[in-house]
Amino acid sequence: MALIVQKFGGSSVADAASIQRVAKRVTETKTAGNQVVVVVSAMGDTTDELLDLAAAISDSPPNREMDILLTAGERISMALLAIAIHELGTDAQAFTGQQAGVITDTSHGNARIIDVSPSRIQRVLEGGAVAIVAGFQGVTQHTNDVTTLGRGGSDTTAVALAAALGADVCEIYTDVDGLFTADPRIVPAARRIDRITTEETLEMAANGAKILHLRAVEYARRYGVPIHVRSSFSLNEGTLVTDADPEEGPMENPIISGVAHDSSQGKVTVVGVPDVPGKAAQLFEAVAAAGVNIDMIVQNVSEQETGRTDISFTLPADQSKAAKEALEATATELGYQSLSYDEGVGKLSLVGAGMRSHPGVSARLFGALRDAGINIEMISTSEIRISVVTRSEDLDSAVRAVHTAFGLDADEVEAVVYGGTGR
Amino acid sequence: MALIVQKFGGSSVADAASIQRVAKRVTETKTAGNQVVVVVSAMGDTTDELLDLAAAISDSPPNREMDILLTAGERISMALLAIAIHELGTDAQAFTGQQAGVITDTSHGNARIIDVSPSRIQRVLEGGAVAIVAGFQGVTQHTNDVTTLGRGGSDTTAVALAAALGADVCEIYTDVDGLFTADPRIVPAARRIDRITTEETLEMAANGAKILHLRAVEYARRYGVPIHVRSSFSLNEGTLVTDADPEEGPMENPIISGVAHDSSQGKVTVVGVPDVPGKAAQLFEAVAAAGVNIDMIVQNVSEQETGRTDISFTLPADQSKAAKEALEATATELGYQSLSYDEGVGKLSLVGAGMRSHPGVSARLFGALRDAGINIEMISTSEIRISVVTRSEDLDSAVRAVHTAFGLDADEVEAVVYGGTGR
Repeated sequence: MALIVQKFGGSSVADAASIQRVAKRVTETKTAGNQVVVVVSAMGDTTDELLDLAAAISDSPPNREMDILLTAGERISMALLAIAIHELGTDAQAFTGQQAGVITDTSHGNARIIDVSPSRIQRVLEGGAVAIVAGFQGVTQHTNDVTTLGRGGSDTTAVALAAALGADVCEIYTDVDGLFTADPRIVPAARRIDRITTEETLEMAANGAKILHLRAVEYARRYGVPIHVRSSFSLNEGTLVTDADPEEGPMENPIISGVAHDSSQGKVTVVGVPDVPGKAAQLFEAVAAAGVNIDMIVQNVSEQETGRTDISFTLPADQSKAAKEALEATATELGYQSLSYDEGVGKLSLVGAGMRSHPGVSARLFGALRDAGINIEMISTSEIRISVVTRSEDLDSAVRAVHTAFGLDADEVEAVVYGGTGR
Repeated sequence: MALIVQKFGGSSVADAASIQRVAKRVTETKTAGNQVVVVVSAMGDTTDELLDLAAAISDSPPNREMDILLTAGERISMALLAIAIHELGTDAQAFTGQQAGVITDTSHGNARIIDVSPSRIQRVLEGGAVAIVAGFQGVTQHTNDVTTLGRGGSDTTAVALAAALGADVCEIYTDVDGLFTADPRIVPAARRIDRITTEETLEMAANGAKILHLRAVEYARRYGVPIHVRSSFSLNEGTLVTDADPEEGPMENPIISGVAHDSSQGKVTVVGVPDVPGKAAQLFEAVAAAGVNIDMIVQNVSEQETGRTDISFTLPADQSKAAKEALEATATELGYQSLSYDEGVGKLSLVGAGMRSHPGVSARLFGALRDAGINIEMISTSEIRISVVTRSEDLDSAVRAVHTAFGLDADEVEAVVYGGTGR
């Protein structure tokens, strides 16, 4: 008998019919002889509707009250799912984050889990019932105030519960069959990845692959929880994210796991920055203080005659306003000449744990892009990743060219079930 | 400085604009120098929408999970109200029934409050903020499972909190100006009642006046909490429900407080019941076991030649199916000849604490109905109430005739603000 944590996102429980389909899947897992804990997000658009209601009342609602508001969504979906499972003849009880023992810090809206004490969930499992747990939420340690975990919160809840319960696997259900070597909407020949390490998954997620959230993967990495990413629309095997050695098959990692891309990037160029020690630090301190996550940085060689240089950096496009404001507010101290903002950039990232022991990967990458006539504007690398910035209109063909160049294309294009937004 | 508990029902918080209006009223009470606790119901139709969702999934959902589902509604309204008050510059925090210390028994769907420990609410009030509390809900003592209080639950929450906090008054906001001597939709000359005892209010509520719920009034009676029923659409004084002696004015109660009516009644007649000892007890035991609330009972004089009699009783129309099934299931044991069901009945009740010391009230009531040409089918009385059953098509004119006969008509018809369903 295995203990399985299953997580279903908002699109999997968007209406009564979807909830009944999820209930059927949960019941099948249970009657196959497993203990089952289900983590569930709010139904479809519930969260957006609640945000709209709050926005109609206030531009700056207090975070504590927003968390109360937003957790109403999971309350609805978890109760309905428990009712649906019960209707299929299997005992099921729903629990809030608090009842499931999910303790967080007090950062309303973006809380961190500091402890999970799922004794009540364990009792329910021992009693033979399915436990449904509200994702995305916890409770503060001393005041019992409800908190939300921010983006990717339900995935994180699922992995954290799986860790605390010592689950055999944490199944993350989505609307695709797993992780792919590239986004199948761009690369029809993309293949489903059978097995991938957490480190590679982190690089893929950090560089635009939207299926799994960074925080959940980090949690899984730290506590050794295997994640099985699979489709709620099929019974196909999905992608196993794990650092454990495979029981069979080659011990070697494939050189390349996949090609991630991110079209939601912007590029800021600060023109004519005085080339004196400490200026760059001052500049990025100002940007960091505005909460902007900088990705790649390029600094041109200083012009001898002017003693000035240009500094460019990329960032998520939706943070460009904050970055611009921070730079303008410190324009006098920084002493630069002008600011420019480029929305037309995209980022391609080649990820693979085997890269460490295989030289020549970057040469092949640059060659593939050259052959496809695509210009590289910036480059950054980690031990297991190479990222390049291109014109955004070149991004899709760049992804296809690189995917082919590294032999990732499927022999035949699989019938990929793909739809929705992949949230 | 007074401590005031204000309760707003679903129609008062139906949308963002309504919530902002309530926030304004709360803020005015607070800035006038009072401590304010607000109890709030779910927004408008939220509860019905949640019930529809559950009904789409199951005909018999488990009660525990239904309570989780239904309490999502208050979670939304309480958070939005706190946000709206905050937006007006007054500090406000929202609390669940659990956080407010509302402990109940484990009867999911119709739980009874067994204790209220509002220490957290007290701290918030002492800190100068407004406390918003979710109505209609509590939490079980040992398992921390959320419960709902059933019909009238938010009124009960408000009165129970007022009692536990030692509040000066519990204001129940509704869409009318208070309690009236009769339903103004039927009797345009009905007057607002300034002051009424809990005993009279209980009789009015039990006999069809829909503004206040029985349980809340019973709670107020037991703990001596004054209730002020008033409109959320005006600043007018409403009706004070209290057993305290008035500080000024006559100590005598008026003879008659008002005329209640109930058109949602049905009448069951069991024809040809063997007139032997214990038969009536057996009959009503069967009906009571089906959860039916019987109101009035009439037993005809037995016919000597057959040794049989007819027994009629009234009940809420929506319980007639249950009563009929219970009687049919025990038809053999009871030995009656046939059943008949009459949907065309209505009940008029004349309520007044002064009735005790004033004979002749029933004579005047029967005279007024005779003069209006209205036939009386059944009669029942308590110490402070006389009820009669009439044909339902006669009910409205009966209420008007009685209202006039007891001198309750306003000299001039007041401009009564009246609308909606009075929930």
